[in-house]
Amino acid sequence: MSAKYSIGIDFGTESGRVLVVNVNTGEIKSMHVECYPHGVITDTLPSHSNLLPIGSALQNPKDYLHVLQNGIPLALEKAGLHPHQIVGIGVDFTSSTVLPVDKYLNPLCDYPKYHSSPHAWVKLWKHHPTKNRTEQLLKLATERKEKWLNKLGNNISEEWMIPKIVEVFEEAPDIYRETEYFMEANDWIVSLLTNTITRSNCSLAYKSFWNEEDGFPIEFFSSIDVNFGDTILSKLKGEIKNVGTCAGYLSEKWADQLDLPIGLPVATGIIDAHSAVLGTGIHHSETLLMVMGTSTCHMMLNNKLKEISGISGVVKNAILPGVYAYEAGQSAVGDIFGAYVNKHIPETYSQEARMRGISIFDYLEEKANQLPPENGLIALDWHNGNRSILCNTDLVGALVGLTLHTKPEEIFRAYLESTAFSARIIFETYQNYGLNIKHVVACGGLPQKNALLMQIYTDVINIPIQVSKSNYAPAIGAAILGATAAGTHSGGFDNIKEAIKSMSQPIEKTYYPIQKNVQSYEKKYQIYKDLHDIFGMSHSYVMKSLKSNKNPSPSLENI
Amino acid sequence: MSAKYSIGIDFGTESGRVLVVNVNTGEIKSMHVECYPHGVITDTLPSHSNLLPIGSALQNPKDYLHVLQNGIPLALEKAGLHPHQIVGIGVDFTSSTVLPVDKYLNPLCDYPKYHSSPHAWVKLWKHHPTKNRTEQLLKLATERKEKWLNKLGNNISEEWMIPKIVEVFEEAPDIYRETEYFMEANDWIVSLLTNTITRSNCSLAYKSFWNEEDGFPIEFFSSIDVNFGDTILSKLKGEIKNVGTCAGYLSEKWADQLDLPIGLPVATGIIDAHSAVLGTGIHHSETLLMVMGTSTCHMMLNNKLKEISGISGVVKNAILPGVYAYEAGQSAVGDIFGAYVNKHIPETYSQEARMRGISIFDYLEEKANQLPPENGLIALDWHNGNRSILCNTDLVGALVGLTLHTKPEEIFRAYLESTAFSARIIFETYQNYGLNIKHVVACGGLPQKNALLMQIYTDVINIPIQVSKSNYAPAIGAAILGATAAGTHSGGFDNIKEAIKSMSQPIEKTYYPIQKNVQSYEKKYQIYKDLHDIFGMSHSYVMKSLKSNKNPSPSLENI
Repeated sequence: MSAKYSIGIDFGTESGRVLVVNVNTGEIKSMHVECYPHGVITDTLPSHSNLLPIGSALQNPKDYLHVLQNGIPLALEKAGLHPHQIVGIGVDFTSSTVLPVDKYLNPLCDYPKYHSSPHAWVKLWKHHPTKNRTEQLLKLATERKEKWLNKLGNNISEEWMIPKIVEVFEEAPDIYRETEYFMEANDWIVSLLTNTITRSNCSLAYKSFWNEEDGFPIEFFSSIDVNFGDTILSKLKGEIKNVGTCAGYLSEKWADQLDLPIGLPVATGIIDAHSAVLGTGIHHSETLLMVMGTSTCHMMLNNKLKEISGISGVVKNAILPGVYAYEAGQSAVGDIFGAYVNKHIPETYSQEARMRGISIFDYLEEKANQLPPENGLIALDWHNGNRSILCNTDLVGALVGLTLHTKPEEIFRAYLESTAFSARIIFETYQNYGLNIKHVVACGGLPQKNALLMQIYTDVINIPIQVSKSNYAPAIGAAILGATAAGTHSGGFDNIKEAIKSMSQPIEKTYYPIQKNVQSYEKKYQIYKDLHDIFGMSHSYVMKSLKSNKNPSPSLENI
Repeated sequence: MSAKYSIGIDFGTESGRVLVVNVNTGEIKSMHVECYPHGVITDTLPSHSNLLPIGSALQNPKDYLHVLQNGIPLALEKAGLHPHQIVGIGVDFTSSTVLPVDKYLNPLCDYPKYHSSPHAWVKLWKHHPTKNRTEQLLKLATERKEKWLNKLGNNISEEWMIPKIVEVFEEAPDIYRETEYFMEANDWIVSLLTNTITRSNCSLAYKSFWNEEDGFPIEFFSSIDVNFGDTILSKLKGEIKNVGTCAGYLSEKWADQLDLPIGLPVATGIIDAHSAVLGTGIHHSETLLMVMGTSTCHMMLNNKLKEISGISGVVKNAILPGVYAYEAGQSAVGDIFGAYVNKHIPETYSQEARMRGISIFDYLEEKANQLPPENGLIALDWHNGNRSILCNTDLVGALVGLTLHTKPEEIFRAYLESTAFSARIIFETYQNYGLNIKHVVACGGLPQKNALLMQIYTDVINIPIQVSKSNYAPAIGAAILGATAAGTHSGGFDNIKEAIKSMSQPIEKTYYPIQKNVQSYEKKYQIYKDLHDIFGMSHSYVMKSLKSNKNPSPSLENI
């Protein structure tokens, strides 16, 4: 009998990645990355010249289809497999990424009449012009003592689904009216492939105020606006399924397009960071997973429910059946290093790196590695706001301790350290609420290439950090869900834990704390904590007034 | 009758400048700059390899003689004058710059046995390893309610004379014992030239706890150490003379060396920033002078005594007879811009500036000039501590408001603005104590070359700023004192105000506030003030703990 494979598709911010994974060994048989032709749309819509509001982050839904239509056949071709060796498909997606569609699941932005309206397009997770509206929603929910709010860290983020929909409701009533369904992009892809309307419990619970016990908070929706309350539920309908289940089967139309068998099982979707928990094989409590890339998610599993202020949320059945999945996050990590390395490195350093044939990043890391942890420069890593535990997009980055002698490598190291301190605050928050952390696993784009960064994290948190072998944990997780959707009878697994056991990626390297550095960082962390509490809590008006001192964003209405 | 001239010699941190100035017109007939061959000695003494303590800033007194011996003849040669056309010499000096000498005024560092001892060398104003000792002196003086402390902003700075002498007393008792006189470098030069022991009231009052009414605080000196109290007065002896008087007459030995007439009047010395008040022609209250260079001094004159906390000091007769002279200062201004431009500008900017044949500084200024004042980035200009009004060398620089999109020109502009905000805090302090500011004059190395900087200052303080024509206001001031020392009978002036009238430099350009910017900066200044008060006052422990988190400096004893 020939080997069986599952397809895992990971939709990121700039590109989609298709992996073909052996269901018995976890071997990655092939991979194909397809960049989104339109990328992140921040300034003007395609074929239009009107400037979008500051903070806009839209996408073209065609780009996602492009990943399916180009990426799947190319990955299969590279793998050299017969289509019948594929047992299932799983999909993970950045979230909350939202689009309005008609009853045939056609995106409204494809309607010529809505082509120039930003509200008809996909709003990417980091679409941020909804700040004031989000604050109002939070105020209202807090006043109403909404129960669901406790499970969402007592916070509402602009990055979630409901604020994005309310924006459409208020600013583009015609589009709101004509929208049959507001879809998470993840659910949209799964529904398209299976010709169903299926929604994943994972994104609904983290991003849409829904939970298994209480459903949607209809009274809260009505308290926003009676008309909104009257109409929104029908636009959110669909069959809600748990992660780990089969959403449906590949339609004839899509089977043709992708050259895959009709009826291939397609898994219910999952958020990307959550999928990484499966991909790295974590299935017990006391292990924290850091999914480290441009931003970082801190994931934990536990059998008990703890309502933790400041995290992104806790949801039952969002990763494993019967288990609570906890998510917290840092808004910018690799992004901070990238912005610094790309824009602020002096000519002499660039020349020296070039002469030695190494990247500026490696050159800086080498120089930063020679500095002691006791350096008197410290950063606040809030260049893109603070997600956990302050939940405040008004916060901004800072460097404190600059002198006439400060060198670029000191700034670089301060940035590395700041993200580690920021992670430790999340660790301590979990622990303060009774979630014990004995093991730490890291995956994502950063850990494998950045030894200094990982050593600093290890020294700051004083727990060994195990780095996962694969950079592609979310796509592996999606493939695990694809194999689980298939079930044993189709060559997959009936039980997600068995799929994890066979397919998840092993640990490649472990970093151990260096006690001398641990002590130094203990002191420096206390200073970071002081800065964190001053700027994030007691004196948070300072950064808010600084941010509002910029030119205000034009509202969407003025476009 | 041929025209008469006065020589003004300005001793700076890196070089000495000799000006030959027409006493009737103020015309600068010639100028010669002599760089100190040994510069600022920070790492190792000449011909020795032992590392100096961090923060050391020593100099070789021979370098000052070099300015006299080379600079005066060369300047006279350039001017093409007969020696008898010179009516007098004036000297200004950075302060407090201190050296131990024997009874013949020979520096102790010239003794072979002391050649390797840092304490035998000149300690430049910015010699900073005396932090703890200075804090102890301040504590002691505050407890004892020393009256002189009120006139010195209720503070003692490491940059003053007494902390530097106490350092010698404690760490090199043999050198202390063998020292006949501790001399301000300014007084040393004047005393050498005139074969006297003359001390200027100006530096004594600002830097040595002396004042006209009470003399030296002998009981305070004894409270530091009985032995110190018993011995220090004899090491500070000499005839104390007021600025504007004649210290003595050029000795035969020096007349020979400089090819000048024996008996030429030499003026009592003055501190450089104070001399600039004379050079720019300021002789009334309600005008503030900013002497802007690597650091900035804010000078005012007033007939009344106000004891102002946080300024550098107030001294009667220090500039004009019968008038109180006020000094406050910013520890780093041009130095901050220089450090940023030299070390943190990306390759693309350097290339573009080169291609266009302009300096990086001009290129950045051009880009920064296109930014609105409402930019959401703000800096604290404490890269070298804060002199006024916080008097705290533990403070460090900061950038608040960094994002993933921050550009170098935004940082550059934030630094320009931060020094303007810092100046405004000093302005408001003067005003809060009843010193009215109606006019502002700027001189020094920065104002003529930096239009954006000056416009920002004008908009931040909302008062027109008049820029003095000459960059060399301190040397002009010294020449004015040389002419005053000469008196009318020798072709000079009997009255310093007449000398100012004839010789001071006119205004070249005036900047006027742009009202739109004034309003923007009013808001941004309030944010700066918040940061200033948080880091400088209510939470100053944060920066202190950050600074002490660096490796501690080795003490001088370990050298």
